[in-house]
Amino acid sequence: MGDWWAPLILRDIFLGLDRFEDLAVDLGISRNLLATRLNDLVTNGLLDREPYSQHPPRDRYVLTPAGEELVPILAALTAWGDRWETPPGGPPVRFRHDRHRCTPQVACSTCGEPLSAATLVVRPGPGGRAAPGTQLVGDRAFGGHRR
Amino acid sequence: MGDWWAPLILRDIFLGLDRFEDLAVDLGISRNLLATRLNDLVTNGLLDREPYSQHPPRDRYVLTPAGEELVPILAALTAWGDRWETPPGGPPVRFRHDRHRCTPQVACSTCGEPLSAATLVVRPGPGGRAAPGTQLVGDRAFGGHRR
Repeated sequence: MGDWWAPLILRDIFLGLDRFEDLAVDLGISRNLLATRLNDLVTNGLLDREPYSQHPPRDRYVLTPAGEELVPILAALTAWGDRWETPPGGPPVRFRHDRHRCTPQVACSTCGEPLSAATLVVRPGPGGRAAPGTQLVGDRAFGGHRR
Repeated sequence: MGDWWAPLILRDIFLGLDRFEDLAVDLGISRNLLATRLNDLVTNGLLDREPYSQHPPRDRYVLTPAGEELVPILAALTAWGDRWETPPGGPPVRFRHDRHRCTPQVACSTCGEPLSAATLVVRPGPGGRAAPGTQLVGDRAFGGHRR
């Protein structure tokens, strides 16, 4: 993804700012960089283009299903950021779910308990291998057992 | 944070690869860039240095409480990535919690239900303001109501 523009772009599109011009103004990002990031997000399957005008030809951006599934994770990241470095004046946004207040947090799919670094266990999976990015992690962190 | 090395570094340290040399070999990252990213993570309060040798002076890296709280979010991001682009051979890692299998997912802190883009609602918070990065989002996405 390259840098932290991608999550901000996805956030804006989720919130309904889905046109190039609006994104450029909202984010204060250069038009070249915004065009590159939008292309990357389309190529990576997180965004689709949808024409909203023929003359002139203009697209708006919509989240793909993969992009939509990223939204709650970005929300959990936002809540984490606000918890550890609350901006002056309080959090910029609040989350709601159904009719109640909600802090997005990561939980176990099986039992529903919140997960922490202390309770989450990572084990090697079938696709693990020693390669750049995971050169040692299999042997060191998992004691050489890859299965 | 700059780029996507930061989450990989945090992952490795969570998994017990906490020394500079190990991180350099595991990630296949240049030593200069690794040193910069580690400094950034310390400055941003995600990592602490802890000496493990006096002669020569050597530090290992440990997660701060803020860094630890990021671990489940990174796990949810990993699970999302594996769901949408499973590597050949299957997922590189599997998650466990207590004694059962677990897919880290984002849920509502109040009712425990999994959150989706369709059910999560974002409202303006007390600290919201129009500034680069959020120039339009308050007025457009929230209809001009900032509270």
